[in-house]
Amino acid sequence: MSNKTKKFILPEEEIPHYWYNIQADMVNKPLPLLHPGTKQPMKAEDLYPIFAEELSKQELNQTDAWIEIPEEVRELYKNYRSTPLVRAYGLEKALGTPAHIYFKNESVSPVGSHKLNSALAQAYYCKKEGVTNITTETGAGQWGAALSYAAKAFGLELAVYMVKISYEQKPYRRSIMQTFGAQVTASPSMSTRAGKDILTKYPNHPGSLGTAISEAIELATTTPNCKYVLGSVLNQVSLHQTVIGLEAEKQMQMAGEYPDIVIGCFGGGSNFGGISFPFMRHNILDGKKTRFIAAEPASCPKLTRGKFQYDFGDESGYTPLLPMFTLGHNFTPANIHAGGLRYHGAGTIVSQLMKDGLMEAIDLKQLDTFNAGVVFAQAEGIIPAPESCHAIAAAIIEANKCKETGEEKVILFNLSGHGLIDMSSYDKYFSGDLVNYTLTDEAIAENLEKIGSLA
Amino acid sequence: MSNKTKKFILPEEEIPHYWYNIQADMVNKPLPLLHPGTKQPMKAEDLYPIFAEELSKQELNQTDAWIEIPEEVRELYKNYRSTPLVRAYGLEKALGTPAHIYFKNESVSPVGSHKLNSALAQAYYCKKEGVTNITTETGAGQWGAALSYAAKAFGLELAVYMVKISYEQKPYRRSIMQTFGAQVTASPSMSTRAGKDILTKYPNHPGSLGTAISEAIELATTTPNCKYVLGSVLNQVSLHQTVIGLEAEKQMQMAGEYPDIVIGCFGGGSNFGGISFPFMRHNILDGKKTRFIAAEPASCPKLTRGKFQYDFGDESGYTPLLPMFTLGHNFTPANIHAGGLRYHGAGTIVSQLMKDGLMEAIDLKQLDTFNAGVVFAQAEGIIPAPESCHAIAAAIIEANKCKETGEEKVILFNLSGHGLIDMSSYDKYFSGDLVNYTLTDEAIAENLEKIGSLA
Repeated sequence: MSNKTKKFILPEEEIPHYWYNIQADMVNKPLPLLHPGTKQPMKAEDLYPIFAEELSKQELNQTDAWIEIPEEVRELYKNYRSTPLVRAYGLEKALGTPAHIYFKNESVSPVGSHKLNSALAQAYYCKKEGVTNITTETGAGQWGAALSYAAKAFGLELAVYMVKISYEQKPYRRSIMQTFGAQVTASPSMSTRAGKDILTKYPNHPGSLGTAISEAIELATTTPNCKYVLGSVLNQVSLHQTVIGLEAEKQMQMAGEYPDIVIGCFGGGSNFGGISFPFMRHNILDGKKTRFIAAEPASCPKLTRGKFQYDFGDESGYTPLLPMFTLGHNFTPANIHAGGLRYHGAGTIVSQLMKDGLMEAIDLKQLDTFNAGVVFAQAEGIIPAPESCHAIAAAIIEANKCKETGEEKVILFNLSGHGLIDMSSYDKYFSGDLVNYTLTDEAIAENLEKIGSLA
Repeated sequence: MSNKTKKFILPEEEIPHYWYNIQADMVNKPLPLLHPGTKQPMKAEDLYPIFAEELSKQELNQTDAWIEIPEEVRELYKNYRSTPLVRAYGLEKALGTPAHIYFKNESVSPVGSHKLNSALAQAYYCKKEGVTNITTETGAGQWGAALSYAAKAFGLELAVYMVKISYEQKPYRRSIMQTFGAQVTASPSMSTRAGKDILTKYPNHPGSLGTAISEAIELATTTPNCKYVLGSVLNQVSLHQTVIGLEAEKQMQMAGEYPDIVIGCFGGGSNFGGISFPFMRHNILDGKKTRFIAAEPASCPKLTRGKFQYDFGDESGYTPLLPMFTLGHNFTPANIHAGGLRYHGAGTIVSQLMKDGLMEAIDLKQLDTFNAGVVFAQAEGIIPAPESCHAIAAAIIEANKCKETGEEKVILFNLSGHGLIDMSSYDKYFSGDLVNYTLTDEAIAENLEKIGSLA
C-alpha cells in the first residue's frame, strides 16, 4: 500500500460555507407536520414556543437548497473540521475484499462524534435570538456532550435529560457534560409531569429517547426564555449534518472515486442524512445510481419493519404529529448498548425518501454489530461507538458481497463516533453478557394497533 | 478571529521521513549506562537480551542525528498524522493574554495519545527481528493501549503489566487493550518474582511504573522469543516521539511564528522530548533562545527536586544503571490521577540537558492541574488527560506572565492525550475528593539516602 494516500483532509477554506437542504430537491416533499389538536399543517410560527425562530424556519424550508452557515458557527467548525476521509486499507485487507472502503471519521471531533455539527448551529441561533437557557435529551450521551460544549461556547445554560439506562451505563459521558458546565438529570425523572407519569406507572422504566424528549420539551415550554433543542430526527438537524457529506464529496474527488454505496447507522437520521443527502442530490438531479443504506438495530427496526403513518416524536405526545416510519411513540426499545439508536421513529425526510425508494435499510443484531466493531478496531486502530458499529456491520456485509462477485465497489460509511466512552459495553460483549434482541412482527403490530390512527 | 487559520495540518508527503536524535548534537553527551554488576559501560549487544537489536543500537547512538523512519511505520503514521497544530484562540481569550498559545494535538491519535508514535516503531523492529511476544508496563494505560494496537498491527502477542491503582481507576483503558487483543495484568502481580516480593511485603501496594517495569522485564528475560518494550524514559522512545516536534516545527512555519517557550508534561520524558528536541536543536546549533519547560507533579518532582546520580530504572533493579535525576528507584509516588507521571526518574538525555541548563522544570500541584484542564476544556472543547493538564497549567502560568508584562510571547505546548477515559478523575475533582500531595525535602533526602551510591 506504500505511497498511497490514506487520509484526505480539506484545507480550511474548503470547509463548506453552505448546508444542503435536500427538501428543496425532493420531487415528493415530506408531508406537513400536523397540529395534534386541530390536525392542521404547522407553520413556522407555530413552532416558535419550542424552537428558536430561525431553526423553526429551517425545519419547514422546502424551497432553498443551500443555507448559509453562519460565520460564527463555521469558525467553531474550523476547530475540528474538515474531519478526515480515510481509505480503510486495513479493513479491506482483513476482509480480503476487492471493494474500496472509505470512512468519514467524525470521531475526531473534540467530543468524539458528529453531534457537534448541529449542536454548534442550534446553540448559535438560540444565542442570537436572546435565549438564555436551552434544554435537550440525550441517549448514549453523544448529543448531550456535544451540546454541553456548544452551550458553553455561546454562553448558554443547559439542562440535559439523559436516558436512564445510558446514565447508568455511561457515567463518563455524564461527567463530560458536567465538565462543560451542563446540568444532567436521569430520565424519566420526577422533575416533570411527563417523567412522573411514567415513573408512577413503571418505577423501573429504563428511559428512552421518546421519554427524555417529553421531559425536555416540558421544561422548555414551562421556563421563561428557554428553548428546546434536539440532536436528531428533525429536518434542521440533518440539514446541519450535511457538512459531513459535503466534505466527503470533495474528499472523494481528491481520492478520484465516487461511492457506489453510502452507509450510515440510523437512530433518528442525523448522521445518516448528513453523510447521504449531498450524494443523494446527484441521484435526484444527475442520474447517479448510488445506493444509500440506513443501518438500524433489529431491536428497533422502524425503517425495515415499522409503518409509515403520523405519530408523535415523543412518549407523551408534546410534539407535532410527524409523518414517519414508526414503531409507535409508546414503544420502549430494548436495552441495547447503542443508546443513540433507541428511538421509535424516523425523521420525516428520511421517511419520505424511504417511501419513494430513494434509499434502503437493513436491521442488524447487536452481537453482529459488536463483532464488526472489533474487526474494524483491530484493523484500523479506532474503537467505534456501538451506534457506528451498525454502519460498519452493514459495510462489511456489502464488502463481503464484493468478495463473492469480485466487484471493486466503492463503499463509503460514516464513522459517527468513537467508542472510548463505551468500553463497558465492549467488556460485556467480550464476557458473553450481551444478547440479541429482535422485535417480532406481532409485537410491532400490537404496539401500532394500540396507538391507532392519530391524523 | 474571523478568517484566521486555527489549525495547521501537513500534507501526507510532509510527514517526517526521519526521527531526530538529539544525542548527536549534544555537546555533553549523556553518561553511559552501566552494568549493575561490573559497573562497566553497556554496549548495544549487552541490551539484546531485553530489547530488539535495532532498538538497542538506537538507545546508545550518539553519532547519527537523523534516523530513517521505516516505510512500514510511516505508513501507519499516515493513519493519524500529521496531528493538528492548533492556535488556542479560545484559551487566549479566556485568559485575556496577549500571548500566542499553540498546542500540538496528539489526542487525535486513534488511541488518544502520542504513545502510538513509539509503539508502532518498537513493534515494527521486534517483528522484523522475528520476535513473537512482547511485554511492557503501563501507568495510566495510554502506553498500553497504544502498544496493544501496534502489536495487533504487526501480529505480535502482547502482555501488559498495568499499575494497579490505574487498573482500578481506569477500567476502560484495560478494556481498550483487551479489545485490541492484549493480555492485561494488574501490577504488582503474583506472576513474577518481582511482584511477589513486593506483595508479600506490602499487600496493598498500589503499584508504580518502576514495579511494573520490573515485572515486564522479568517476563521478557524468562520467556523465549519475547522482548521488553517501554513507553518512556528510554532514549529510543524520545527519538521516535520527535515526530511530534518535527511536524510542529513545519506547522509553526505555516503559522509564521517560532516558539519562545515549549512545554510538555513530564513523566519519563517521552512527550516532553518529542515536542522539545527538534526545537532545542536550533538552540544548540543556531543560537535560538527558546525556553523548554518540563511540567511535573509536585508529588513526583525528580527534575525540580531530585538528585542527579546513577540509579535503576525499575523497582527491583533489573535495568542497567542509568545516569538520571531521580527520587530513588524504591520511591512509591502518591496516588495522583496523572498515572503516566508517577515515575521516580527522568530519562538520561533529559537529565543531562537539565544538568547543562538547556531546559528547566516546574512542579505543579494536582488541584491546580485539574483546574487548568477545566479552563482549557471549556475554552477549546477538548477534555485533556490529567497528565496533559500539567502542560496546560504551565502554559497558563506563562501566558498570565505575558498578561502582566504585555509581551506577545509564542507559547507551544504538547497536548499529549485526551482525558475521555479519565472522567472518573474529573468527577473526583469536581466533588472535592482530590487532594494535593507535595513531597517534602526530608522525604526525598531520606529516600535517596536509603539507596545510597550505586555506581
